[in-house]
Amino acid sequence: MEPRILDSVLDQVRRALEQDDVTGAVNIIEALRPSDQAEVFAELDDATQIALLPRLDPDDSADILEKLDDEEVAELATALPSEALIRIVDEMEPDEAADLLGDIPQDKAQRVLAGLEDPEEIHPLLLHPDDSAGGLMTSEFLALRRRMTAAEALEALRVWKPEAETIYYMFVVDAVGRLCGVVDLRQLVMADPGTPLADIMDPDVISVTVGADQEECARLMSHYDLLALPVIDHDRRLLGVVTIDDVVDVLEDEATEDIQRLGGSQPLGRSYLESSVWLVMRKRIGWLLLLFLTESLTGTVLRHFEQELEAAVALAFFVPLLIGTGGNAGSQTTSTIIRALAVGDIELKDALKSLWHELRVGLLLGLGMATAAYLRALSWNSTPDLAATVALAIMTIVIWANALGAVLPLLATRLRIDPTVVSGPVMSTLVDATGLFIYFTIARLLMGL
Amino acid sequence: MEPRILDSVLDQVRRALEQDDVTGAVNIIEALRPSDQAEVFAELDDATQIALLPRLDPDDSADILEKLDDEEVAELATALPSEALIRIVDEMEPDEAADLLGDIPQDKAQRVLAGLEDPEEIHPLLLHPDDSAGGLMTSEFLALRRRMTAAEALEALRVWKPEAETIYYMFVVDAVGRLCGVVDLRQLVMADPGTPLADIMDPDVISVTVGADQEECARLMSHYDLLALPVIDHDRRLLGVVTIDDVVDVLEDEATEDIQRLGGSQPLGRSYLESSVWLVMRKRIGWLLLLFLTESLTGTVLRHFEQELEAAVALAFFVPLLIGTGGNAGSQTTSTIIRALAVGDIELKDALKSLWHELRVGLLLGLGMATAAYLRALSWNSTPDLAATVALAIMTIVIWANALGAVLPLLATRLRIDPTVVSGPVMSTLVDATGLFIYFTIARLLMGL
Repeated sequence: MEPRILDSVLDQVRRALEQDDVTGAVNIIEALRPSDQAEVFAELDDATQIALLPRLDPDDSADILEKLDDEEVAELATALPSEALIRIVDEMEPDEAADLLGDIPQDKAQRVLAGLEDPEEIHPLLLHPDDSAGGLMTSEFLALRRRMTAAEALEALRVWKPEAETIYYMFVVDAVGRLCGVVDLRQLVMADPGTPLADIMDPDVISVTVGADQEECARLMSHYDLLALPVIDHDRRLLGVVTIDDVVDVLEDEATEDIQRLGGSQPLGRSYLESSVWLVMRKRIGWLLLLFLTESLTGTVLRHFEQELEAAVALAFFVPLLIGTGGNAGSQTTSTIIRALAVGDIELKDALKSLWHELRVGLLLGLGMATAAYLRALSWNSTPDLAATVALAIMTIVIWANALGAVLPLLATRLRIDPTVVSGPVMSTLVDATGLFIYFTIARLLMGL
Repeated sequence: MEPRILDSVLDQVRRALEQDDVTGAVNIIEALRPSDQAEVFAELDDATQIALLPRLDPDDSADILEKLDDEEVAELATALPSEALIRIVDEMEPDEAADLLGDIPQDKAQRVLAGLEDPEEIHPLLLHPDDSAGGLMTSEFLALRRRMTAAEALEALRVWKPEAETIYYMFVVDAVGRLCGVVDLRQLVMADPGTPLADIMDPDVISVTVGADQEECARLMSHYDLLALPVIDHDRRLLGVVTIDDVVDVLEDEATEDIQRLGGSQPLGRSYLESSVWLVMRKRIGWLLLLFLTESLTGTVLRHFEQELEAAVALAFFVPLLIGTGGNAGSQTTSTIIRALAVGDIELKDALKSLWHELRVGLLLGLGMATAAYLRALSWNSTPDLAATVALAIMTIVIWANALGAVLPLLATRLRIDPTVVSGPVMSTLVDATGLFIYFTIARLLMGL
């Protein structure tokens, strides 16, 4: 929605509400497209949202809840009366409904579940974590038997009248519900009506097990250009289907989390302006304090070399320059390596290859930076000794930073920690203390301090 | 493909090639799924690739080229004889073919274009930049007339036998080719055969103009959960269709570029291990040198305060700690703001709101860090004067870094520069020099140096 149009719609809604014309406000919202309804709705304050939601068509309310951030939905759902919530949840896609029920107090979730028309559609989905294939899949899908003909399958489709995108790929199962093929609507429409599905379907169907990570689902669907991915249990029984629209959201959310973590913060988990100052602060202070404590090591190193520093105060002039450059080189490396891991360009087994790659890149960068640093030092009237020290130190620090930046994300992955913990700020902090140590050690040797 | 399976397939292919059994190697590759063919193919060396490509079924070669990185495709296509290339390009999707022709020498592209079966399918696509809706769209789509019935539309489909995913959404145009509605295959299958499309179609169709940025396409398709997005010219005439599989790739590539830029490097534009050491170095050295020159300002500030530094060498111990913390706070802010801009959570008009948000977050973080810094300074036996200086300095620096981190990405956007230029490394570098100035100014005032 254009910001200008959004603002004008919001104005209309607010004006209606100021005149206590709730029906008017409801009508304005219901005239919009589902995604736009959610956008307008998100801008209203909490009390208005809670007042409006039960008044809207439950179908529209369901669409709106499916579009909002999980945390917001949980707050709204908790505040709504159970009766109203049941009417709305009945209209939601099973996977979204399961997410919602998993995020509200358990007793309320039980009450809502008991009141639903099709609780058995949602119940199995509640067992799986949100970020697994089982949490992402919908249980609303059409499984066809392999002996059916194309005409029978189309007839089943007409009777079932599915709303979802799941219709474009239909999965074929055997007598005990095991996945044995995939057929798309296009093939079905084009086939001779009497052909059995077994002859139309593609038996080579790509699937995931229910516990697979959501990033794995996204990677498979992106790699094989799939619109739907079947989810099976360990006996190959078909449990549900992950659709491409969910995966697009996963890709966006995962990239957002990675970028926030690479900036040295915990992911916010909701959109920025909706995050309170306290929330943003809480997500950042932990890393900031931890990095502060680690960075304190620089003070320890400096105090250790206090004598050298007093003998040549000029050494201090280059401290921020050297450790800053090291941190920058480390950041460059680590962000490249972490993204390469995330999109599957490199894996754990490529650790040595990556290290060797970065050592050579570090050597080239180090030579370039050493030249720049030597000239800069001379231009500050440094002695040739000091200039040589600075040049040699910056080269060593850059190579060291590149090696560290290549190895640490892979080490984290090996230890089953998210590699984004090795963020830019973590890299600069680690390189700062070690870089100082390198610098003063070289100074002691070269300048005979 | 499982790495283990990939390795074993590669072994087989290489063994066949060692025995000069090219046909054997070709057969092994052709037995794989299209995406897996590309994965195996990408691991072979350039000479083998060029030898194998003309021997594979042109249909498979086309699929492989569509899956490889653009740079790699350009190299291969340039090396292949024109005859072989024409056979392959004939089988490619028009949008991918246009991308390829745009990346190879112009005279060769002209020769290939002249030899194609349907050059007019590709010709209009060559006019649009790769990263616009026009560059992303395919011209292979079915436009239906509004007076057609559902049965006639299905018949048209059977005759046309499209291969692409574009079939799931069909767009309806009026007599002069202007987009007037969308109908999906599901609706068509379910409708009474005699119903005219005008009665089935949804006239409220979301579209983009041909010059729209690819990120805008991705945002619309993700926001409205679309599988296909029609591309129109300024007279609303339908020119092509962007499909969801292209957008999934755009989302991944854009996130990769953003993450690499946020790490302070230019995007590599190809996968990591395929990037030569020279390429990686060239993408990084520019920023590293520029940041080095900017970071030199820290030396200028330190030399300006040389007198204070000599009077109290202990001041130097806190330098990395203070500027490191400032850089980290700035990185946290800037990565959050840049991602919020990229996914559309905030816009230019929210500049003041974001600044106000970050000033308050900075105040809270600053108070926390000041407490930590005060205690740390006392634990290093600093005088109360020095401890107070350090605490006040760290608070000021954190607030300053947050404000800068909030404003600079928005300022860049305002100046039509990609906001990711304000990467973590840029933030730390900017905060370093200004942070030192803040620190020594406070020291001069508080400690009376």
